[in-house]
Amino acid sequence: MNVVYTNILRAEPEVVKGLARHGVATVHEAQGRTGLLGPALRPIYPGAHIAGPAVTVSLPPADNWMIHVAVEQCQAGDILVVAPTSFSDAGYFGELLATSLGARGVRGLIIDAAIRDMHELTRMGFPAWSKAVHAQGTVKETLGSVNVPVVCAGGLVNPGDVVVADDDGVCIVPRLEAAAVLKASEAREAKEAATRRRLQNGELGLDIYDMRDKLAKRGLIYRAQALPE
Amino acid sequence: MNVVYTNILRAEPEVVKGLARHGVATVHEAQGRTGLLGPALRPIYPGAHIAGPAVTVSLPPADNWMIHVAVEQCQAGDILVVAPTSFSDAGYFGELLATSLGARGVRGLIIDAAIRDMHELTRMGFPAWSKAVHAQGTVKETLGSVNVPVVCAGGLVNPGDVVVADDDGVCIVPRLEAAAVLKASEAREAKEAATRRRLQNGELGLDIYDMRDKLAKRGLIYRAQALPE
Amino acid sequence: MNVVYTNILRAEPEVVKGLARHGVATVHEAQGRTGLLGPALRPIYPGAHIAGPAVTVSLPPADNWMIHVAVEQCQAGDILVVAPTSFSDAGYFGELLATSLGARGVRGLIIDAAIRDMHELTRMGFPAWSKAVHAQGTVKETLGSVNVPVVCAGGLVNPGDVVVADDDGVCIVPRLEAAAVLKASEAREAKEAATRRRLQNGELGLDIYDMRDKLAKRGLIYRAQALPE
Amino acid sequence: MNVVYTNILRAEPEVVKGLARHGVATVHEAQGRTGLLGPALRPIYPGAHIAGPAVTVSLPPADNWMIHVAVEQCQAGDILVVAPTSFSDAGYFGELLATSLGARGVRGLIIDAAIRDMHELTRMGFPAWSKAVHAQGTVKETLGSVNVPVVCAGGLVNPGDVVVADDDGVCIVPRLEAAAVLKASEAREAKEAATRRRLQNGELGLDIYDMRDKLAKRGLIYRAQALPE
Amino acid sequence: MNVVYTNILRAEPEVVKGLARHGVATVHEAQGRTGLLGPALRPIYPGAHIAGPAVTVSLPPADNWMIHVAVEQCQAGDILVVAPTSFSDAGYFGELLATSLGARGVRGLIIDAAIRDMHELTRMGFPAWSKAVHAQGTVKETLGSVNVPVVCAGGLVNPGDVVVADDDGVCIVPRLEAAAVLKASEAREAKEAATRRRLQNGELGLDIYDMRDKLAKRGLIYRAQALPE
Amino acid sequence: MNVVYTNILRAEPEVVKGLARHGVATVHEAQGRTGLLGPALRPIYPGAHIAGPAVTVSLPPADNWMIHVAVEQCQAGDILVVAPTSFSDAGYFGELLATSLGARGVRGLIIDAAIRDMHELTRMGFPAWSKAVHAQGTVKETLGSVNVPVVCAGGLVNPGDVVVADDDGVCIVPRLEAAAVLKASEAREAKEAATRRRLQNGELGLDIYDMRDKLAKRGLIYRAQALPE
Repeated sequence: MNVVYTNILRAEPEVVKGLARHGVATVHEAQGRTGLLGPALRPIYPGAHIAGPAVTVSLPPADNWMIHVAVEQCQAGDILVVAPTSFSDAGYFGELLATSLGARGVRGLIIDAAIRDMHELTRMGFPAWSKAVHAQGTVKETLGSVNVPVVCAGGLVNPGDVVVADDDGVCIVPRLEAAAVLKASEAREAKEAATRRRLQNGELGLDIYDMRDKLAKRGLIYRAQALPE
Repeated sequence: MNVVYTNILRAEPEVVKGLARHGVATVHEAQGRTGLLGPALRPIYPGAHIAGPAVTVSLPPADNWMIHVAVEQCQAGDILVVAPTSFSDAGYFGELLATSLGARGVRGLIIDAAIRDMHELTRMGFPAWSKAVHAQGTVKETLGSVNVPVVCAGGLVNPGDVVVADDDGVCIVPRLEAAAVLKASEAREAKEAATRRRLQNGELGLDIYDMRDKLAKRGLIYRAQALPE
Repeated sequence: MNVVYTNILRAEPEVVKGLARHGVATVHEAQGRTGLLGPALRPIYPGAHIAGPAVTVSLPPADNWMIHVAVEQCQAGDILVVAPTSFSDAGYFGELLATSLGARGVRGLIIDAAIRDMHELTRMGFPAWSKAVHAQGTVKETLGSVNVPVVCAGGLVNPGDVVVADDDGVCIVPRLEAAAVLKASEAREAKEAATRRRLQNGELGLDIYDMRDKLAKRGLIYRAQALPE
Repeated sequence: MNVVYTNILRAEPEVVKGLARHGVATVHEAQGRTGLLGPALRPIYPGAHIAGPAVTVSLPPADNWMIHVAVEQCQAGDILVVAPTSFSDAGYFGELLATSLGARGVRGLIIDAAIRDMHELTRMGFPAWSKAVHAQGTVKETLGSVNVPVVCAGGLVNPGDVVVADDDGVCIVPRLEAAAVLKASEAREAKEAATRRRLQNGELGLDIYDMRDKLAKRGLIYRAQALPE
Repeated sequence: MNVVYTNILRAEPEVVKGLARHGVATVHEAQGRTGLLGPALRPIYPGAHIAGPAVTVSLPPADNWMIHVAVEQCQAGDILVVAPTSFSDAGYFGELLATSLGARGVRGLIIDAAIRDMHELTRMGFPAWSKAVHAQGTVKETLGSVNVPVVCAGGLVNPGDVVVADDDGVCIVPRLEAAAVLKASEAREAKEAATRRRLQNGELGLDIYDMRDKLAKRGLIYRAQALPE
Repeated sequence: MNVVYTNILRAEPEVVKGLARHGVATVHEAQGRTGLLGPALRPIYPGAHIAGPAVTVSLPPADNWMIHVAVEQCQAGDILVVAPTSFSDAGYFGELLATSLGARGVRGLIIDAAIRDMHELTRMGFPAWSKAVHAQGTVKETLGSVNVPVVCAGGLVNPGDVVVADDDGVCIVPRLEAAAVLKASEAREAKEAATRRRLQNGELGLDIYDMRDKLAKRGLIYRAQALPE
């Protein structure tokens, strides 16, 4: 059954805004090393860093019809997450769809497939994370669903979850955990700032993190030189 | 049998010039979604956009001897297309070959293998689409052929066909269809310009392309909310 | 047995400095087409070009504990080479470790896995060659070894070997051969400079390298036109 | 937080038994072309065909500690589904674990990583679907969870869902839909039996499925011969 | 434009029969190391060895409609060659299509995608060479073409060409060269039979092929022992 | 420089014979989880299990000349290990070379590339571990070396090291450690035999390995049921 859910719950705007200040690595660690999508998803240009609620699209391989349907479900600040039901490297998404999403204030695209019109998307400043750039056209023949849970690049995305994306990739924060993850991210960054200063001054992580004893207990040996074979 | 064909028919310069004004995605669509080479071929630097007749090279894995032979067959405006007869990621092509091709006015390189001297090629502005950057050297021991049909990154390329390449990848236009594809590309871009303005104004593709009825007939359902499980 | 060797022999600083003036492709050719690591290793930003003695780390998949141990073994000018004992695309290395290495004057990182904090590493100008960018966190639970021979991206690296890395990838020069390879690199570049000028003037490699006879003897045929099938 | 849920709801034994009579392709079609795990999962020997409720394990890369924990949660008839939190091709599972699961009546293993002791598992008749065979050992250092939802080979698996696995791969049937999917599978097979007899008698799918009109309307053209180029 | 060519020229039955007596490796060598499809194509069960004229199908990713169209174009002894226009690992082909082709005397299938019902195809003895086994269903929405030239697994296949397939993979012999290639295959096998007997008696290839001089001239050195480093 | 070392030191025959009684997984564990070659190397038929001293070959991509040279260096009981200097999936090795090696008593082949004549090798019972089966022919134009250290499928192999290969893959035991590794393998198997009996009787690994405390200390939680979201 193919359904479009029109009325999803989105994470709080203030929380989303807060998460946008943190990088993917920080957010991923702050929620217990979960939520990261696979490393095949790469930004089409460096330097983009966005966060926003997910509008999800499940669609057939090489058929982009449902993206047109999904555009209508997007609000300003959203991020579109597109997942084919089986492997595809076709170019589902190009400059016209980006223009349409841009007119609605959508912040970017995550797609477990390819985009095209890379040059134009870059020029427009419409960021996309995809597993390929490929001009291969798609058809508009088969239905899918909008705002259902999808598996995208090996990770689960529910509609309304917060997507955080930067040069490191894409991390998904479940809607109901977003506020707690924001708080944990801020705590983590505060702690790292202190560590950073010490490292800049030449202190070693071995001492800062108090690792020497634990290493010795596990049996690590230091030797001046390799034995002659 | 290893042959160099010295006298190939090239697409009309005016048509090639016209095709160079269109992106790979447009040309690929304009010729009925055919001719696209595989997405493993990526430009070594962003922003290059070229078109030109193909001079083709079929050669053994990790042996670049025939590229030296092919240089002599290239004219100003040509694009060299290199396809090993079995998989190779060796670095067949570097700065000296680019210098030689550049001196003849060749516009760029398409290779179903790797290039090297990436930094120098970028600095020279000699664009190349390859499936890898790899310094691995090649030998000069075994013959191949020049200006025979080759399969490059999964697509067929005949000598004299028009190669169009940009950030989206590489598309091949058969020589005898080039004029018709140029016309179709221009028509497509004109039509897209009108659509673009409507999308910028917030109209939806669903309405512009008149999709709502067709979606309903196929059985698409809209619901406010997911049922509780 | 897990060991840290604290007292490795490094290549001569003058030789390392000399090798840093040559690209990876040149060095690889100058030492007889050996020493190149696989093309999966790519720089996280273009334009970096470094050389330095290798401090090597052998560690478990998805566990970066030993990198903290290795930092202490690094001196100014070194390059850290990290190789998991089985396949991993986890993000072993980020901005804090780069800060710590930077404070010691380490020149860069080679890792047969992923890095994270790509944006920050780029901003800091700390170059890294990795096979992926991935925020996936690692643990600190299992020992490895420092300054043992490692296989990294398909190539053997001994501690103290010279690492040369640029946009073309990474090449390893055995410590005891470094001076000879430097000399051969200089000779190669001198010879190429002369060839370059001739190619720029339109001479053909076929003539410069005297290939026409050898090609004819192997049986290469020139034909004006393809026979009708 | 790492949790073991000890008390999962399993699909009805009668329904599981029914689903075991149908192949993966049938079940996948009967539930609307959903639930299929990726084709990287292959059986370690041909001919196995099993169905059973999933006991799920989420664990770190290259660490099999939680499999030992999960064994205790398995009942006769269950199938163990193991998913690392990031990519791993380590050999998490071998003959001793299979012996332990076999002693409890577990039917088989699905793992998005590698197994080892392939020869012994085959001899014991303990079927496993994995993405590799690899002897690479794992550690027992880091916690994970048992009977939480996991993404395995690109598909979502909830504890208690029915796993169906055969030579075609692995399909997951949500627990609450299992009875309906069984009914749909039986209906599909009955219909296919009738079609099979007609095809055996030489009737064409074009006629049985009444495709000729639709093909003509879409514009399919029949020609005796290719035009001369 | 989507066309079905109904009247292709097939290679001579006697020649096809002759080629079926030779393995893929022999035929590939006999026609000058050309015609081999890529190694991703593997037989679904070992031991099959067939030859026959190609009926070719070009179709969209994840859409198997045109296979139903192609069945009608097949004659006894033919081999169906299926190539999607962009990457797909969907399961286009299963037991019902095999039943239909079997009823017409078709010898097997070559597909640059996946098959399903592997167990049933094996039991029926209907051989298939595919790049995956995957139950993923396809749609029947978009046209393609039958008996046009296709690129399949990196090789060009024209309708009527002879397909030879065995455990080593798939080789394509152009129709007009088939008789010559058969003769060359027979000559090659005769020569190899003589060599085989000499090798069985302990003679070395170095002597049989008279390689020692050539090796020495190229500079190969024999040493009793590695020098101490 | 291309060299053939004619006089390598081989591991003791008694030790080799002993190691052949143990599987790859056991040997790999017994030497501290080292020495395993990558999982891309698969046996061409199931059930083979061999051990023997390595004769190593380093050769160019798609050029098998040096295998002919290496045959002469092989003794009864040896295993030939072949590693191209850059990636290749060509078919370097077929039935004639196997015949020649078989006549000398060589036990099998490990190759980081492809073999061909798979059917014949299987029939002859000549086992090979390769990363592909591919009929693609090679040339005999460029030298390499025999009995030098090689990196094969990501692992280091020195001439004379013991190769152990079975359905799980390939493990390399350094010559000087072979006796100790044999002893450790025997100890490991003895210990596992005892564990196996307890597991067969239904005891749990959690208890046999005394894991419950350690798990609790790390914070593992048991819960009867998932909380409602």
